[in-house]
Amino acid sequence: MKIVIIGSGNVAYHLTKAFCQNKIAISQIFGRNEKDLKEISREFNVPFSTENLEKADLYIIAVKDESVEEVSRQITVKDCLVAHTSGSLEKEKLDGKYRKASFYPLQTFSKTKDLDYKKIPFFIEAENNQDFEILNNLAQKISTKVLESNFEQRKFIHLTAVFACNFTNHLFAKAKEISDSQNIPFDYFLPLIDETVEKIHHISPKEAQTGPAIREDEKVLRSHEILLADKDAKSIFDVMNISIKSMYKK
Amino acid sequence: MKIVIIGSGNVAYHLTKAFCQNKIAISQIFGRNEKDLKEISREFNVPFSTENLEKADLYIIAVKDESVEEVSRQITVKDCLVAHTSGSLEKEKLDGKYRKASFYPLQTFSKTKDLDYKKIPFFIEAENNQDFEILNNLAQKISTKVLESNFEQRKFIHLTAVFACNFTNHLFAKAKEISDSQNIPFDYFLPLIDETVEKIHHISPKEAQTGPAIREDEKVLRSHEILLADKDAKSIFDVMNISIKSMYKK
Repeated sequence: MKIVIIGSGNVAYHLTKAFCQNKIAISQIFGRNEKDLKEISREFNVPFSTENLEKADLYIIAVKDESVEEVSRQITVKDCLVAHTSGSLEKEKLDGKYRKASFYPLQTFSKTKDLDYKKIPFFIEAENNQDFEILNNLAQKISTKVLESNFEQRKFIHLTAVFACNFTNHLFAKAKEISDSQNIPFDYFLPLIDETVEKIHHISPKEAQTGPAIREDEKVLRSHEILLADKDAKSIFDVMNISIKSMYKK
Repeated sequence: MKIVIIGSGNVAYHLTKAFCQNKIAISQIFGRNEKDLKEISREFNVPFSTENLEKADLYIIAVKDESVEEVSRQITVKDCLVAHTSGSLEKEKLDGKYRKASFYPLQTFSKTKDLDYKKIPFFIEAENNQDFEILNNLAQKISTKVLESNFEQRKFIHLTAVFACNFTNHLFAKAKEISDSQNIPFDYFLPLIDETVEKIHHISPKEAQTGPAIREDEKVLRSHEILLADKDAKSIFDVMNISIKSMYKK
């Protein structure tokens, strides 16, 4: 099976790397950014092109969400399978007369960072069983966590990640505003944050909950409330405390 | 200097361990729970008692917040220094005719878990410079991160930890409710959560922010909103998105 990866960003880089590490041959990496393509090509000994998209059995489009549709039009081969790698796009966003699929790795990628691909979940959707198996076999060579999921489920996966990662990161940013206001270095909190996350590798977050809200320690809650300087921090404080209390009342 | 640690829980265990590892002699560990005291005593070769509190120069009270006051009354030595290990109590909560202090390690402890004490911040408050230096020297033998902080600052430290850890853990719990609703194993999200936290070891959380809210991607935000089943998740979603948008408008 001939495989072409389209794109030269972080996802394309790591997919190429994961494929090569697992002896899956890549026929070509294709994209617009010659400099980035050259670097990937050199590192993994894979041919690249910015102009002539090679004929292949499988194209994996690893570009930004907003470019997927346009890029997908460049594939003119008919008897092929095309998969995008986006969590928030329908496979029908792919615009061409080929079989469509989604091949979604749930991870945040940066080129400089080594990743353990075995642990990265892949969510796959295809038009038929045969195509699903093609992508499933491929993903299983890389990762131990491969699941079928349709567009509706991918939206829930994305939403879960928004709560667990995007919102979490924002809490870190608001926490840093509080510690900054007292000239306490935020990195003093990193060991505690690391432990908080380490815990949920072993017990469920619901069981791991600590703090004044779950203890219904109104004295501490009130003493904290008056320290909050800005409106957004105050709103977050209120809503999180209400939600914590209500989770454990059920 | 003779040091006695009062308590036999997680904090007492780890303080004893950290002191012993750094060749700081402990004269006694004292408490009510004989079984736990025996275990610590055996592991670190430190005398223990449930009845006769030894005379010492420094007592470190490592018991639950609600027991600190009562326990502190048992110390009848006058010319000594007594420190509690609580982040949310004033040093004046200590009830006796001795010099009072706070010796607060910012970490969540469990006995079974090895910790790198060097990284654990210690926040110290004392009545005078001499007492501060006693505790400062002690803490600096254990950790590279020792700061003076009064009760007011400790409240801000605690509040920062509430945002960065307690609230964060609750987001994980709400995220798990979402993934559970779709039968997607929550541990599939752990590599992504690990990366989210790993990132803020290198760049500030404000710089690290990603997701639909910072992109002001109203289409995705609206598609997520309608997936939310419960009121609390919805309130968190609204408040976090408002706060993210407002942080990057400034």
